[in-house]
Amino acid sequence: MNEMDLRQLLTEIRPLDENAMAAVQTRLDQQTKPQGSLGRLEEFACRFVAITGREDIRAKRVYTFAGDHGIAEESVSAFPKEVTQQMVLNFVTGGAAINALARHAGADVKVVDMGVDADFEPMDGLLPHKVGRGTANFSKGPAMNREQALQCLTTGITLARQAKEEGIDLLATGEMGIANTTPSAAIAAIFTGLTVEQVTFRGTGIDDKALQHKIAVIRKGLEVNQPEPTNPLDVLAKVGGFEIGGIAGLVLGAALYRIPVVIDGFISTAGALIASELHPHVRDYLFAAHRSMEIGHVHMLERIGQRPMLDLDLRLGEGTGAALAMPLIEASLQGLREICTFAEAGVSEGRNQ
Amino acid sequence: MNEMDLRQLLTEIRPLDENAMAAVQTRLDQQTKPQGSLGRLEEFACRFVAITGREDIRAKRVYTFAGDHGIAEESVSAFPKEVTQQMVLNFVTGGAAINALARHAGADVKVVDMGVDADFEPMDGLLPHKVGRGTANFSKGPAMNREQALQCLTTGITLARQAKEEGIDLLATGEMGIANTTPSAAIAAIFTGLTVEQVTFRGTGIDDKALQHKIAVIRKGLEVNQPEPTNPLDVLAKVGGFEIGGIAGLVLGAALYRIPVVIDGFISTAGALIASELHPHVRDYLFAAHRSMEIGHVHMLERIGQRPMLDLDLRLGEGTGAALAMPLIEASLQGLREICTFAEAGVSEGRNQ
Repeated sequence: MNEMDLRQLLTEIRPLDENAMAAVQTRLDQQTKPQGSLGRLEEFACRFVAITGREDIRAKRVYTFAGDHGIAEESVSAFPKEVTQQMVLNFVTGGAAINALARHAGADVKVVDMGVDADFEPMDGLLPHKVGRGTANFSKGPAMNREQALQCLTTGITLARQAKEEGIDLLATGEMGIANTTPSAAIAAIFTGLTVEQVTFRGTGIDDKALQHKIAVIRKGLEVNQPEPTNPLDVLAKVGGFEIGGIAGLVLGAALYRIPVVIDGFISTAGALIASELHPHVRDYLFAAHRSMEIGHVHMLERIGQRPMLDLDLRLGEGTGAALAMPLIEASLQGLREICTFAEAGVSEGRNQ
Repeated sequence: MNEMDLRQLLTEIRPLDENAMAAVQTRLDQQTKPQGSLGRLEEFACRFVAITGREDIRAKRVYTFAGDHGIAEESVSAFPKEVTQQMVLNFVTGGAAINALARHAGADVKVVDMGVDADFEPMDGLLPHKVGRGTANFSKGPAMNREQALQCLTTGITLARQAKEEGIDLLATGEMGIANTTPSAAIAAIFTGLTVEQVTFRGTGIDDKALQHKIAVIRKGLEVNQPEPTNPLDVLAKVGGFEIGGIAGLVLGAALYRIPVVIDGFISTAGALIASELHPHVRDYLFAAHRSMEIGHVHMLERIGQRPMLDLDLRLGEGTGAALAMPLIEASLQGLREICTFAEAGVSEGRNQ
């Protein structure tokens, strides 16, 4: 895919059909409850049906995108870089937090090697889509070139299409990449217009001094690269990450192939933000899972126009918050399908109905 | 149960064992994730294990308490009073929102007739514990007498004991009672010390004029009855409701018999607040499900020292928010049981671990 292909694809993304949404709301309004009293659950049901044309979820999937980061050599993380590859193996063998929480949600987990700095044997559940062996250090120059950024998007779009073909009705994003809150904070600063300080936090748990250093590293990266806020592909290439690009692609693909997608925390939202800056209607297909502990998260969500469902002080990533939120969308559909109407149940309606 | 029996029972409520909590946290800290990165989920797991001594949930139950309210004759609700009994039948036949959402959560629903103004035939799933045919109009005098208030608590405590005997490891509260945001707002004002205006909202959907009237009715009820904020039983009797008393009793019973209990929205929290004012350690057993649209809810939660998990603009009651939150506690336990340690997975630990 080149840039012209991308521009062509973007023209195929459609806003949701207002009539389809209204038809679902009309049914919800006849159910035995005060109108609108299931709040955002009602909105989830309306959007899900308008996106998919379905009222149930046959299968759910979490894509956990992994990549390494050249910026890790600047000591911006509490963990050593080899943890990325170690955790990929942990995901594939089912021992990580995302595996436990996805099993709880009834979702499968596919791990996507977007650019881990390691060679993996072929393994079930590990999808090899390596764009490079980690990005370059963006405090010294661009993280990747434009072709690599496009390759990330292509991979994510392709995975969304495959999910559609396999009957997946709900997607979730997740990621793993030591140091990846650093590019995500850079992306947050660029698109929100806030200062680096306002959107940068402790990641996996760095102390005050390391946080100040992380902020300085990001500032330097923005100065060196001068990414263009109006050009999301330029932002991804200059300060992004391979897994962040994969998430952006998956989100674009979700909008193209009409699959609702639950966005996890800070890094996933950075990917979703790139996608929504590429095309505003992408937002209609997104469901924000939770409010992360990362201070920049809420600002990115505001920019996308999304409100989180869960308030659990999560700061893990992997897709864990998204896995916890998937059942809420499922519950909204069960409500749509199963709650009786006032007429069916012989219940009197209210004055304001 | 008389007041002396109640005082005796309260002495049996124990705070959670700090050592048991710490032992769970130590295990969580060895799992392959940055320490504390699953946030409040980790606290849920610690508390659940400390309460029950278990690491799994065999069965879950929602108790939906129903009662009518004399105050309904003051036109404080958008719905006519007969909706309480109609909805009880809807619950028992499985057609209401709580039925759909409890099915989604894998919980059973038991409907408790605490004081509906109707005679019901014996039915599976309807527990007959009528304290009266609706409370008296508390704008003119006490809603119930002291013996009735004690009977409400006794019923709730007994239901908790039965649940324990039946192997229920997680409870949720729910309610139905036309006009019951009115007594709940009165309870909120009494225990928080805020004005009636600060804690009173639209219930099932009244307009501005009706809201002003509702506030005036509550003010009059507080003036007429002069409930004592330091005497929760007095508050329940003077401005409460039979279903609110049942919830307070269930919550006391949950603390006595060591069953974690998820608290639904505004009315359920009013019941839980009465229980936690009776004994402060009750709070250790509570899990707040969601932030209701009712403006007084957050103030009651603050008084109890609880933070909600979900932010979904719900304003339905029945136990719907609690049913949506139960799986989050279940997920926290699945994480505790299934996430590998750093040693098991061969993953390097971080600098700050």
